[in-house]
Amino acid sequence: MKKVNASVITIGDEILIGQIIDTNSVFIAQELNKIGIWMNRKVSVGDDKESIFSALSEEEKHSDIILITGGLGPTADDITKPLLCEYFGGKLIVNEEVLAHVKYLFEHVYRRTGPILQTNLKQAEVPDVCKVLLNKAGTAPGMLFEKNGKIFISMPGVPNEMKYLITNEVIPYLLKNVLTETIAHKTLVTFGLGESMLAERIKDFESSLPEHIKLAYLPNYGLVRLRLTGVSSDKEKIQKEIDDLFSILKTQVADIMIADEDVSMETIIGRLLNERKQVLSTAESCTGGYIAHLLTANAKSSSFFTGSVVCYDKRIKVELLDVDADLIEKEGTVNEEVSRQLATGIVKNMNTDYGIAVTGLMGPDKGEETEEVGTVWIAVADKQKVESKRFMFKFDRRRNIETTAINALNMLRLFILSNSR
Amino acid sequence: MKKVNASVITIGDEILIGQIIDTNSVFIAQELNKIGIWMNRKVSVGDDKESIFSALSEEEKHSDIILITGGLGPTADDITKPLLCEYFGGKLIVNEEVLAHVKYLFEHVYRRTGPILQTNLKQAEVPDVCKVLLNKAGTAPGMLFEKNGKIFISMPGVPNEMKYLITNEVIPYLLKNVLTETIAHKTLVTFGLGESMLAERIKDFESSLPEHIKLAYLPNYGLVRLRLTGVSSDKEKIQKEIDDLFSILKTQVADIMIADEDVSMETIIGRLLNERKQVLSTAESCTGGYIAHLLTANAKSSSFFTGSVVCYDKRIKVELLDVDADLIEKEGTVNEEVSRQLATGIVKNMNTDYGIAVTGLMGPDKGEETEEVGTVWIAVADKQKVESKRFMFKFDRRRNIETTAINALNMLRLFILSNSR
Repeated sequence: MKKVNASVITIGDEILIGQIIDTNSVFIAQELNKIGIWMNRKVSVGDDKESIFSALSEEEKHSDIILITGGLGPTADDITKPLLCEYFGGKLIVNEEVLAHVKYLFEHVYRRTGPILQTNLKQAEVPDVCKVLLNKAGTAPGMLFEKNGKIFISMPGVPNEMKYLITNEVIPYLLKNVLTETIAHKTLVTFGLGESMLAERIKDFESSLPEHIKLAYLPNYGLVRLRLTGVSSDKEKIQKEIDDLFSILKTQVADIMIADEDVSMETIIGRLLNERKQVLSTAESCTGGYIAHLLTANAKSSSFFTGSVVCYDKRIKVELLDVDADLIEKEGTVNEEVSRQLATGIVKNMNTDYGIAVTGLMGPDKGEETEEVGTVWIAVADKQKVESKRFMFKFDRRRNIETTAINALNMLRLFILSNSR
Repeated sequence: MKKVNASVITIGDEILIGQIIDTNSVFIAQELNKIGIWMNRKVSVGDDKESIFSALSEEEKHSDIILITGGLGPTADDITKPLLCEYFGGKLIVNEEVLAHVKYLFEHVYRRTGPILQTNLKQAEVPDVCKVLLNKAGTAPGMLFEKNGKIFISMPGVPNEMKYLITNEVIPYLLKNVLTETIAHKTLVTFGLGESMLAERIKDFESSLPEHIKLAYLPNYGLVRLRLTGVSSDKEKIQKEIDDLFSILKTQVADIMIADEDVSMETIIGRLLNERKQVLSTAESCTGGYIAHLLTANAKSSSFFTGSVVCYDKRIKVELLDVDADLIEKEGTVNEEVSRQLATGIVKNMNTDYGIAVTGLMGPDKGEETEEVGTVWIAVADKQKVESKRFMFKFDRRRNIETTAINALNMLRLFILSNSR
């Protein structure tokens, strides 16, 4: 398995002053990883000639492929493109295909009236030594250069434009021209066992894998994704090998596997509910609306998610969700019975098939409650019954909230499945 | 103003495979920026000796200060510390202060019973050529090295431990030993004018600034922070200069300034409500609980935030928030009157002083609604009156939700202030 390395260079002062979080390189890393290219280094540099030049020449030494994002907006154009011309030796020429595309965007998509500005037309100028990658998501094209046997690809930093180019131009190009072998992979998602415990359980399987097949652990808030990746010149053979090994892996993690493909917990919940034509509501105290936010981050959730009562104040628990006021008076809000009453209350008051309820102490302080910080009670209910469970999370407030949310969704998943048996 | 440059090296495969988003370097960039140190380059490399070595020697050429995070966990220890010993020339010795701290943590904080594991005790071993920076947030200490006139500081990658060291050890050390001059700065927050329009408005002010005083624009979802930073060997003089210029800047942005210090919109809302001993609730359709999540991300919000009804389904708008069912039948859910009824409904049903309501189409699809994707109606209400306003956002779903939230909070801010006049 010949290892192909890539460096990513992100250009722009906004990353270096901590103004934006660099999510572009996360996307690029994931997409490269899928086709078996290893992101070797990631470098962020400022918007000046010296920094960009030194980054290009250094990364050329480290990697086979150098992907560059940013520094291509209409205002930054003046620096970056002449600089690329200089680095790769060439001159700026108008690319007719890009020019037609820019004109089309302004006339038919942006629907600007009046003449197109010179700065916008300049986006159609490219170094004559590059291969143009047409950017259908915007005006600035991608540009591919070759030098000393290395491939350099420059893309705009606007996330959706970069994503368009990576998906539709860069990955297909690399698959065709750089990776002479076929990549096959399959992913499953587990929940409930930490990465190191999981590794311990499947260590024999992992060590038995042939050299050309790799197992990756991708943990994220209690979920651990396992991905098998194989590389071979024989497409059918490698796919069959991966399929066979994936079957073995599945049997070894059957009890903790929540999906045999790469999907999120929210998607799994959505599918279970859509299949049953059932709907869900949530009663959120300590998560403060985060579960609802997670679910509604996907527009399609309207088919299975009705809504939430964020009952941050104990008065709301009583008034909108019918929790016993005396119970709260005597026992506080973080206990099993309150979680159960919240769950049955939301099912009743939102008239849904299922309800999730959470009440707990996310820290850093515990206010007037007696329980320890990190204590969470989660309950799930349908119209007949309710189940509840105590958790203890010892992270910071943000991660406690996120971990509570994913555990609550998993409890609902198990509850729905046990109903179907 | 002597420019001091820093490089940040983050060590760990998890960044390179796109498993985690690197927020550590965002925090470091912001903290360095505050004391006038420019983050020159940010480099992520894998967990292997060759990668770390080449990163150290390259960044030493680029910057005065090299900050290193990650690669110090109990399992990775075996690689990183001997490697630092080799790079800086030294040998591992037990540091008694760190050893006492590790023992204290295990006995009194983590409350482990039984003997402490050898791997944990090894955290007290440090290269004898480093200055130890005691990490009170965890077991792995920070380590400071000097070589060829450059300063290297190695920290664990766990966010709260890294933050502890940056705030309590690294920044004070740099202020005392590296920056010979005093840094003074003042920040204000504006809302409602884009960065380029704002720059146009205050361009005369900006160009009149003396060489040793800089103005930074820090935009974030409709908010733009303006920060004046001055550097001088005369502490009192520079503070007065900054104060005087800050007063002038404030008069130029008086109409759009929402705070004359560096605070979030949620904090401003919290202060306004706490001062008045008033409470808020939200009725969220298109934001799906995101406003509640924003507010409850801070534990202190319980003093002014009661809760939310996330009314994703139109049925919940009618049943829990008293929106007229005929109105929805005839006009759909995205219109002015629905937003107003949601706002008055949440104020009444949660019995709060103020209510925020949002209804809109966040995209990518618009479902059965007739309005254009991106249309949002926001309403704010108290017990006497209600105000509503239409917005149009053309970002992706995630950013539409975030921008709606910040605009809704700003509408409430203006509403509260107009009540106080």
